Amino acid sequence: MYIYPKKYDCIVIGGGHAGCEAALICARLNLDTLLITISVDTIGAMSCNPAIGGLAKGHLVKEVDIFGGEMARNIDETGLQFKILNKSKGPAVWSSRAQADMPAYRLRMKHLLEHQEHLDVKQANVDEIVVEDGRIKGVITHIGNEFLCDALIIASGTFLKGKIFIGLNEFHAGRAWEPPSDKLSESLAKAGLLIGRLKTGTTPRLDARTIDFDALEPQMGDEEPTPFSFKTENFNPPNYPCYLAYTNEKTHKVIHSNLDKSPLYSGMIHGIGTRYCPSIEDKVVKFPDRERHQIFLEPQDANSNEIYADGLNTSLDYEVQVAYLRTIRGLENVEIIRPGYAIEYDFVNPIQLKHTLETKKVKGLFLAGQINGTSGYEEAAAQGMVAGINAAMYLLEKPPFVLGRDEAYTGVMIDDLVTKGVKEPYRIFTSRAEYRLLLREDNTHLRLAKKSYKYGLLDKIHYEKIQEHTQKLNETINHLKKTYVMPTIEFNKKLESIKTKPIKAKTSISKLIARPEVDYKTLETIVSDLPQLDKTITQHVEIEVKYEGYINLQKQQIEKFKKMEGIIIPGDFNYNIVAGLSAEIKTRLKEVMPKTLGQAMRIPGMTPVAIQIISIFLHKKNVQSKPA
Amino acid sequence: MYIYPKKYDCIVIGGGHAGCEAALICARLNLDTLLITISVDTIGAMSCNPAIGGLAKGHLVKEVDIFGGEMARNIDETGLQFKILNKSKGPAVWSSRAQADMPAYRLRMKHLLEHQEHLDVKQANVDEIVVEDGRIKGVITHIGNEFLCDALIIASGTFLKGKIFIGLNEFHAGRAWEPPSDKLSESLAKAGLLIGRLKTGTTPRLDARTIDFDALEPQMGDEEPTPFSFKTENFNPPNYPCYLAYTNEKTHKVIHSNLDKSPLYSGMIHGIGTRYCPSIEDKVVKFPDRERHQIFLEPQDANSNEIYADGLNTSLDYEVQVAYLRTIRGLENVEIIRPGYAIEYDFVNPIQLKHTLETKKVKGLFLAGQINGTSGYEEAAAQGMVAGINAAMYLLEKPPFVLGRDEAYTGVMIDDLVTKGVKEPYRIFTSRAEYRLLLREDNTHLRLAKKSYKYGLLDKIHYEKIQEHTQKLNETINHLKKTYVMPTIEFNKKLESIKTKPIKAKTSISKLIARPEVDYKTLETIVSDLPQLDKTITQHVEIEVKYEGYINLQKQQIEKFKKMEGIIIPGDFNYNIVAGLSAEIKTRLKEVMPKTLGQAMRIPGMTPVAIQIISIFLHKKNVQSKPA
Repeated sequence: MYIYPKKYDCIVIGGGHAGCEAALICARLNLDTLLITISVDTIGAMSCNPAIGGLAKGHLVKEVDIFGGEMARNIDETGLQFKILNKSKGPAVWSSRAQADMPAYRLRMKHLLEHQEHLDVKQANVDEIVVEDGRIKGVITHIGNEFLCDALIIASGTFLKGKIFIGLNEFHAGRAWEPPSDKLSESLAKAGLLIGRLKTGTTPRLDARTIDFDALEPQMGDEEPTPFSFKTENFNPPNYPCYLAYTNEKTHKVIHSNLDKSPLYSGMIHGIGTRYCPSIEDKVVKFPDRERHQIFLEPQDANSNEIYADGLNTSLDYEVQVAYLRTIRGLENVEIIRPGYAIEYDFVNPIQLKHTLETKKVKGLFLAGQINGTSGYEEAAAQGMVAGINAAMYLLEKPPFVLGRDEAYTGVMIDDLVTKGVKEPYRIFTSRAEYRLLLREDNTHLRLAKKSYKYGLLDKIHYEKIQEHTQKLNETINHLKKTYVMPTIEFNKKLESIKTKPIKAKTSISKLIARPEVDYKTLETIVSDLPQLDKTITQHVEIEVKYEGYINLQKQQIEKFKKMEGIIIPGDFNYNIVAGLSAEIKTRLKEVMPKTLGQAMRIPGMTPVAIQIISIFLHKKNVQSKPA
Repeated sequence: MYIYPKKYDCIVIGGGHAGCEAALICARLNLDTLLITISVDTIGAMSCNPAIGGLAKGHLVKEVDIFGGEMARNIDETGLQFKILNKSKGPAVWSSRAQADMPAYRLRMKHLLEHQEHLDVKQANVDEIVVEDGRIKGVITHIGNEFLCDALIIASGTFLKGKIFIGLNEFHAGRAWEPPSDKLSESLAKAGLLIGRLKTGTTPRLDARTIDFDALEPQMGDEEPTPFSFKTENFNPPNYPCYLAYTNEKTHKVIHSNLDKSPLYSGMIHGIGTRYCPSIEDKVVKFPDRERHQIFLEPQDANSNEIYADGLNTSLDYEVQVAYLRTIRGLENVEIIRPGYAIEYDFVNPIQLKHTLETKKVKGLFLAGQINGTSGYEEAAAQGMVAGINAAMYLLEKPPFVLGRDEAYTGVMIDDLVTKGVKEPYRIFTSRAEYRLLLREDNTHLRLAKKSYKYGLLDKIHYEKIQEHTQKLNETINHLKKTYVMPTIEFNKKLESIKTKPIKAKTSISKLIARPEVDYKTLETIVSDLPQLDKTITQHVEIEVKYEGYINLQKQQIEKFKKMEGIIIPGDFNYNIVAGLSAEIKTRLKEVMPKTLGQAMRIPGMTPVAIQIISIFLHKKNVQSKPA
């Protein structure tokens, strides 16, 4: 066995969205880092859809951004279309989304990694992890070389025992036509981790020249696009169109009558698929009343004729893919460049992880991305970021980096993963966040800058800029709360002119802004001497003022929540001696070993009574163990 | 079995340098073409060195260019450094070479294919060819779909049963970490083709940040770069440096003492490697007296830190690669990004092919590139071009497209392949061309435009431009032959001033140009009224005039050669009835079944006596079979 002479602080396995962020952050925290990937050429590759962001996913991207990650900057530099989704709804659910130029995105990320100080990149397949005395020591590659490290982050995506299905055909592959990583999974099992099996899928890629775009509805990006990264300045990206198409009765009929050729419905696939990104055959079967399903046709890069058919992920036979596609208006003559496929792969149920993404079994071993049962580039990147920071904190013997449910979507996701575990690929949603009016996209960097700076993930210049912005925002709001207008006939006429009700008493400007129909810009036309604000501050002021009531309510809830989170359950707590807990609940508790009463509450199947019993037990014990 | 509803005229398997040219040319000749590739993302990928052209290879690129191929344009658009090699030697061996931006080259080629009219691109693995009554009918993919065609071009590179070696480790792969194509090779064997085994290799890719470039010698491109394509105008490429390094005694010692870890020397590799691009271990073993070997360190793309170590292809163990690299000055601290490796793969001995690259066994089945036992991107592209044109001619029922040894390096290469067969990977050299003073790079398009235009591979506008150029060249030379200077004292003084001997009699201008020390530009300073010529014409005039004697000699040789080529051997010729031929020679003749006496002459092991016997036999038979 050849042991490589350079010992690394941290090794990252995998060059996908999780691996890239993990490796970059470790290296940026000055730790000697090695990224090992099966192919240097596919670093940063987008294996599925050519887009970054989307509902709740946009939030994750912005969190990765403020904590020193790269996804936001990378899409800002290489995106083809930018759009804020849900703009007609409340600001809590506004989400950024961008179409990506896939090769440009990939190459920029590769070059970035190659130029990152303290980071080496090597092409190899990792077959084994090396564990000694419950602590990670290194990895062994498929050509029998050992690389030593003190921390290891595995971000292997769908490569662990990956198996692809197209109709009733199956073949081993980690992604599209790339080789899988079969032995690593066995090595993880040997180290004591429980391995499960999941399934995901991707859609056919179509030849743009064979699509009748005139029959379809174009979808443009925002005319005034917003970047993902708070660092991006002079943002002037292109605005490429996507196109909207629909399945119809004929499509559904073709799919229905060919389900016998589906590996999903014939029992060939054992892994559980994602409920939230279902295959087209799933949609057709599970929603028989739906007359049509939406499809977005998206460009794969600026110069390519390859079109991604968003909404059509499928494991159906090639013949059936051709047939059902051609029932769709605009796709009557379509040619497939790459067929859709399903992929089944090994994952590690994240219930076996701490909130730091370190495994409970092996010290210094962190897992991030699809290996933890998640789906999505953004979910992967956010985990990569957390695993990277925590690997660094572990190595530097500093306190762990944990994001609360009240702090970030990343916190929500990771708490969900490690507390509830995963039965099907996990996807983030705004509905998963209890305090989503606080965890908005727009104020991500304002909320999290302090924490980021504290952990050395944000430079001083940017930190001070953000502080200034926050200060200005608070000052402005205070000023508006203390600036009054009088109920004169003249002023009420002005209010009428901007289509809002008159006032009956002395009223603060902030009260006026709180009205849904009033915005700051219009108010400026009737109130003189309002402070001059730039676009971003204006938006923040409006949101903070308009939603003040809800925001305060959520803040109160967080206080309550924090109390429960403040009740620590000792790491060696023995549930067996707690009278009154059912055997089933004891089993679940022992599986998760929650660190706080708050976490215990979120375990699926937990009852309020059980929480009360534990709470009382902890309280009594605490009283008893206090020094007399 | 699903039979795809669209039937193609021609299918091309493989998206490498041969496959791309073959597919483009078929489609450009208006034939419905389908390119099937294992991965759409690796279309046009440069699997080995980041360079196009080089000795004799530059000639091939220019031939591909005039016959409607894309390699020349593609490198002109994406190259990082351009240089004419051998500029200090005669014009016959001047060769263009360029460093490539690998991802830029690849992506431009992919986009070009995607936008080519009459060309579909599909991602799939081909497992089988379908042959009926000795004629190609289609292919079957690994997911059991049949695509029908009337002509098939296989350009599978090193993917057929590819097996990679790094030290004593082996694993199945078609290229780097990509999956091999195992079943196709069996299908070809079933169709009656004899399959052999070859070996090639590639070098480690190094991390630029760990190289001490100050200790190395930079190598720049030409200050006035010359494009590959005759169509390229306003050529203004970048000029990135390469660096020269050398192995030394220590390097050789490390390699020598680790040969037991080499699959080449331990007998693991059965395929025969290329003599002309030997591994570093081969060089060290076979040339024990050489104190050092040259290495060129070349950039892989404009923004990458990956450096290609040209000259270090190796199958040695990873440990040994690290060790010997670090003995080299400038590489003392080098980190490897991708290790070098050897690859063994199946090939079809090209003795089984016609000059059109059609197999003799299966009508409509053409082979191009490494499957025919060649090495090199340029060799592959030239074969792809020939296979593409001939597949089209076959489909259009037009005369085949064959390039003679007197016409093009491509002609030399293909004649070598189909006549001599291949025992080790074949590489083109200027020394393989008998008439290399005629087959110069500079006049490739002038020589071949007529043929290209005739086959519909050159548009009228460019053809007429070339004709004009040729006419101007001929007129100029004639004019210079008929323009005289007198041996006056005054003129002889002028001759002395430009450092050439005085004349003693009335002398033509062309005679003066013929002098090695005289060039046209200098002559212009002493002779008034010389025709004003642009740079290209000037160069052509100088070469044609200076080398007229040699050129005429080669033209005479060609006439002689053509006589031998003109003696046709009937396709069903029975060598058994020819008395006086040895059993061995009969076997070789029956293997090749040469079409002409010229081709018979070039069969390895052929004797002048045997040729004479066949010649007499053919003559007698001819006389006898003439009508009375």
